[in-house]
Amino acid sequence: MRNSKENMTRAAIKLLRETGLSGASVNRIVEASGSPKGSVYHHFPRGKLDWVDAALLAFGAEMRNGFAAAFGSGLPAAAKVQQLFDGTAKRLEANAFAQGCAVAAVVLDLDAEFAPLASTCEEIFRSWQEAIAEGLVDLDPADRLDVAGLVLATLEGCLILGRAQRSAEPIAKAGRTLARVLAGYQQHKD
Amino acid sequence: MRNSKENMTRAAIKLLRETGLSGASVNRIVEASGSPKGSVYHHFPRGKLDWVDAALLAFGAEMRNGFAAAFGSGLPAAAKVQQLFDGTAKRLEANAFAQGCAVAAVVLDLDAEFAPLASTCEEIFRSWQEAIAEGLVDLDPADRLDVAGLVLATLEGCLILGRAQRSAEPIAKAGRTLARVLAGYQQHKD
Repeated sequence: MRNSKENMTRAAIKLLRETGLSGASVNRIVEASGSPKGSVYHHFPRGKLDWVDAALLAFGAEMRNGFAAAFGSGLPAAAKVQQLFDGTAKRLEANAFAQGCAVAAVVLDLDAEFAPLASTCEEIFRSWQEAIAEGLVDLDPADRLDVAGLVLATLEGCLILGRAQRSAEPIAKAGRTLARVLAGYQQHKD
Repeated sequence: MRNSKENMTRAAIKLLRETGLSGASVNRIVEASGSPKGSVYHHFPRGKLDWVDAALLAFGAEMRNGFAAAFGSGLPAAAKVQQLFDGTAKRLEANAFAQGCAVAAVVLDLDAEFAPLASTCEEIFRSWQEAIAEGLVDLDPADRLDVAGLVLATLEGCLILGRAQRSAEPIAKAGRTLARVLAGYQQHKD
């Protein structure tokens, strides 16, 4: 049963990343996870609201760990930023520009029915921003959270531009530009 | 008839900005625009695909003019950037964090049925990036298009973070941070 729940959550994450709330239906989850329909309602009594929430939390934790690992290295801040964007560009290319950020996709689809998911999305974004900020150790402490917010916003926006253009270039380019601008800013401050 | 088409396009833009493709149905457009259902199919023979495309093009042109006006002023690049983000923050607050970018919302919802809209989205983003780049006259010409891409990506990402947090702060803050970093970068280069 645990595996079945995990399979459904994985399937839900993939569907949310591909087409947001609009494409993620119970039928598609059942189909993608190979689980019987009844088990969806067993594990997620409120249906779509529950499994979208579970999928967001799982995706959020996984990405948070990724940010913490990427920004925990000993590289200068600008190099970490560039590495993050290069890695994201590669992953988007590897999934044929089909899978973006599950949280962003949900935020832009929220209507009255799914409004309760907003606080989950908010908390996840905050946890990502903090994970990035913690790794910006060579920046002025007063700048870290703001620059982390800038990095996260740019990354989210890049994923949209990259998907629209079906190209990894907008992501890699914005990463390089942000890294270059940040490095120049730091040298200007020093 | 022209007014009826315009009313439907305005209603479609609003619905797309609020809930993406998932919330924008023919019934809601009919309701929001006060037009008879038959006239939707009269003006948009392919149904949803046609009116989403028309709404995107109208929204794209309007925003493009906005970018051109905002970046056509005589202010320094960093000040223009900050003004753009401050204005966006105010508008998002004024619509109670309900209306983001119609193009971003569509991009994240695209499935096989709506895949033909991808090229419309791509062209709109490109036109916005170029409109911003044209106004970055005090930047090194080799930097303009890249910085414009960074500005656009950050703005798109901010709109997502702002909606998730139901706050204008992530947008205003990212704008201030980007403006500060850009100004420092320019001074470092000079």
